[in-house]
Amino acid sequence: MFGKILVANRGEIALRVIRACKELGIETVAVYSEADQDALHVRYADEAVCVGPASPSKSYLNIINLISTATLTGVDAIHPGYGFLAENPRFVEICETHNIKFIGPPASVMEKMGDKSRAKRIMKEQGVPVIPGSDGPLNSVEEALDVAAEIGYPVIIKASAGGGGRGMRVVHSPEDLKQAVQTAQMEAEAAFGHPEVYLEKYIEEPRHIEIQVLFDEYGNGVYLGERDCSLQRRHQKILEESPSPRVSPELRKALGEAALKGARAVGYKNAGTVEFLVDKDDRFYFMEMNTRIQVEHPVTEMVTGIDLVKQQILIAAGEKLPWRQEEIKLKGHAIECRINAEDPEKNFLPHPGLIKFYHAPGGPGIRVDSAAYSGCLITPYYDSMIAKLIAWGETREEAIARMIRALDEFEVEGIPSTILFHLEILHHPDFIRGEVTTDFVSNLLKELQLE
Amino acid sequence: MFGKILVANRGEIALRVIRACKELGIETVAVYSEADQDALHVRYADEAVCVGPASPSKSYLNIINLISTATLTGVDAIHPGYGFLAENPRFVEICETHNIKFIGPPASVMEKMGDKSRAKRIMKEQGVPVIPGSDGPLNSVEEALDVAAEIGYPVIIKASAGGGGRGMRVVHSPEDLKQAVQTAQMEAEAAFGHPEVYLEKYIEEPRHIEIQVLFDEYGNGVYLGERDCSLQRRHQKILEESPSPRVSPELRKALGEAALKGARAVGYKNAGTVEFLVDKDDRFYFMEMNTRIQVEHPVTEMVTGIDLVKQQILIAAGEKLPWRQEEIKLKGHAIECRINAEDPEKNFLPHPGLIKFYHAPGGPGIRVDSAAYSGCLITPYYDSMIAKLIAWGETREEAIARMIRALDEFEVEGIPSTILFHLEILHHPDFIRGEVTTDFVSNLLKELQLE
Repeated sequence: MFGKILVANRGEIALRVIRACKELGIETVAVYSEADQDALHVRYADEAVCVGPASPSKSYLNIINLISTATLTGVDAIHPGYGFLAENPRFVEICETHNIKFIGPPASVMEKMGDKSRAKRIMKEQGVPVIPGSDGPLNSVEEALDVAAEIGYPVIIKASAGGGGRGMRVVHSPEDLKQAVQTAQMEAEAAFGHPEVYLEKYIEEPRHIEIQVLFDEYGNGVYLGERDCSLQRRHQKILEESPSPRVSPELRKALGEAALKGARAVGYKNAGTVEFLVDKDDRFYFMEMNTRIQVEHPVTEMVTGIDLVKQQILIAAGEKLPWRQEEIKLKGHAIECRINAEDPEKNFLPHPGLIKFYHAPGGPGIRVDSAAYSGCLITPYYDSMIAKLIAWGETREEAIARMIRALDEFEVEGIPSTILFHLEILHHPDFIRGEVTTDFVSNLLKELQLE
Repeated sequence: MFGKILVANRGEIALRVIRACKELGIETVAVYSEADQDALHVRYADEAVCVGPASPSKSYLNIINLISTATLTGVDAIHPGYGFLAENPRFVEICETHNIKFIGPPASVMEKMGDKSRAKRIMKEQGVPVIPGSDGPLNSVEEALDVAAEIGYPVIIKASAGGGGRGMRVVHSPEDLKQAVQTAQMEAEAAFGHPEVYLEKYIEEPRHIEIQVLFDEYGNGVYLGERDCSLQRRHQKILEESPSPRVSPELRKALGEAALKGARAVGYKNAGTVEFLVDKDDRFYFMEMNTRIQVEHPVTEMVTGIDLVKQQILIAAGEKLPWRQEEIKLKGHAIECRINAEDPEKNFLPHPGLIKFYHAPGGPGIRVDSAAYSGCLITPYYDSMIAKLIAWGETREEAIARMIRALDEFEVEGIPSTILFHLEILHHPDFIRGEVTTDFVSNLLKELQLE
């Protein structure tokens, strides 16, 4: 087992990893930027090293400083959290060169899954349904027009290296295609440094369903049910739940087995998430695989009882998976709300600032993953997350009731937050019935005249 | 279902009940003393009424003011929490007279179980093992000497109306018996207004194991596993866990069935706890039944997934139990630490005062039940509890590891607390092995030179 781990992240996910390490008896090294010197991850870790100024590229993305810190503090492994360097195969290779275990899949696997059109090809070869579309990056607008004509409109343009909604465009007719391709290419170039985009059939009113998988280093893999992440604003997830209210046991099994098959095909190791779109007729299509722990992992932990971050560490340390697939049982229902320092009245503009008073809810079924505290500063340099609030219930109805009462209790004074917006979602009849697609949030925003 | 409930309590248990009501869609009325005007239960309830000055007898025990408040606010039911009026049959009768449902067992049941020697007799009649001893209250010191000679020393003297260790004396030889009886009688008179004491065999190095039961109003009952409450200081529980590391499935079944049989014999209704002593050879003896929700109920909730306070309310509203015994499953392991405003360096003297900064731990497996917040006052008028910290793990080992890291994170500034003492317990090899009896805490205090 590792003796010491460096946590190459900040905020709640850095705390999450530190907590897992402490519970496993592993020492931790936190890294922090000058803007984060008072952050909780600095206080909770056994050691903490400043790795640069506030700007992410100079600190949390600064591979040289991170590797130097890892070497100087004598760690055995690095946990990347999510974001920052979590899906950077070059970083994984550099860790390997320095004989530091990267807690995640190997660089080669990350590369295969990181290129979305390549990932799609691999899945298709395995017989996993993928959304019909261009075979890899588009070479020209003419190719785009041909493919779109063949599969039918609407279509969506996506960045090959993308994520988070950047470089995405939905197109309803051939007249709009040329400009959409060009705009998406420019956005992709600006955001990811790669202009490549691809095209696929746009699935209307889909649900975003993702499957959590765990693979040990000996080829054993299990899936841990699904997460329904259909509630997104501009492709950013804002509320997730497990199980999905609209996934039957049969569909769960089909999705789980497809996810395992695809991951196995690339020799997947450690925790990963296979994302699918599911249409009105329960047909599903592979979208992409995320080769890291996800923000929304706690809902899976709440219904399975399995600590995913500990499993990541144990797998990286060479332990075998302790269960067979049939031993993974889902119990009850869990929902996560991402509470952000954003102003719903102002188009969800991030609103950094001082949290004057912070009081998180408690009681039965409530879990809070947060790095906030009374008197802490939400800085403008990183994401605007204040807390992840997770509610578990014996039934979905109970989980919703608990989430509502916990959101009512949650006190964040000094800056605006999305707490009230989450309450709007939870009180909405369509959400309560479990009948939501990826259009729900955008429709709700129109209803509330917020967009 | 009830439309509105009055919560006749304060502190964390008042919040607990308010949370359950909110999740069930029931309005709440909080009552508070002048000392509690800034308390969280006042803020979280839909309505709040001041019922008197700080002194409990003038506010939380003031039956006239409570019933007037209940009548004026038009509540359908009263939840008493624990302590205060929770086990007062006269209060139950007065509620009934005013057509307000008391959430708990009927007065007649409470009376039978409230008199400890009577309760023992009832259990004995049902074939539930009881500790050998005097048949009801002692009539004289001579009778005490006779009974002790028959059952053998050591023996223990206990107050018939007692609880919390007051009016208790362990006696190892006939020479000490007379004085012990007289002292116990005086303590009982002072504490409870009744001088009656009884005598029983003192079980050496026992474990305190209690069974949670739920009975609906139609005679259906289930048990929800056990809680090991062996860790006590002066008969006050300080750490509880479920399941007990030293209860086998066979013993669990035997204890559960004995608890159901005894409760059924008195026509028990609602939630209750049957307390047993278990000796080194797994023989068990009925001690007493508590006819209310217990402080330590969350550990049972964490391993069963069942919300006990909601069940109390649903049962009182006339709902049938939704499960059969075989449907009650225990999953994982839960531990609760009672964190008190007490100074372990000063003989655990309660230390009221201002909590300048309060930050509760979070993350996986952690539940916090607390009415504390940054800037709140722990008053000298009531108990000294700051928070109940509950940790769940897939295994006992994981629950312990989580509790340790959560205690490490817990910040209470301004007044002393028992956090560090809990860490001493959790790091102790005997505790880690699960080999603890009711002597553990007293021995640990000697080891640490705190007593």
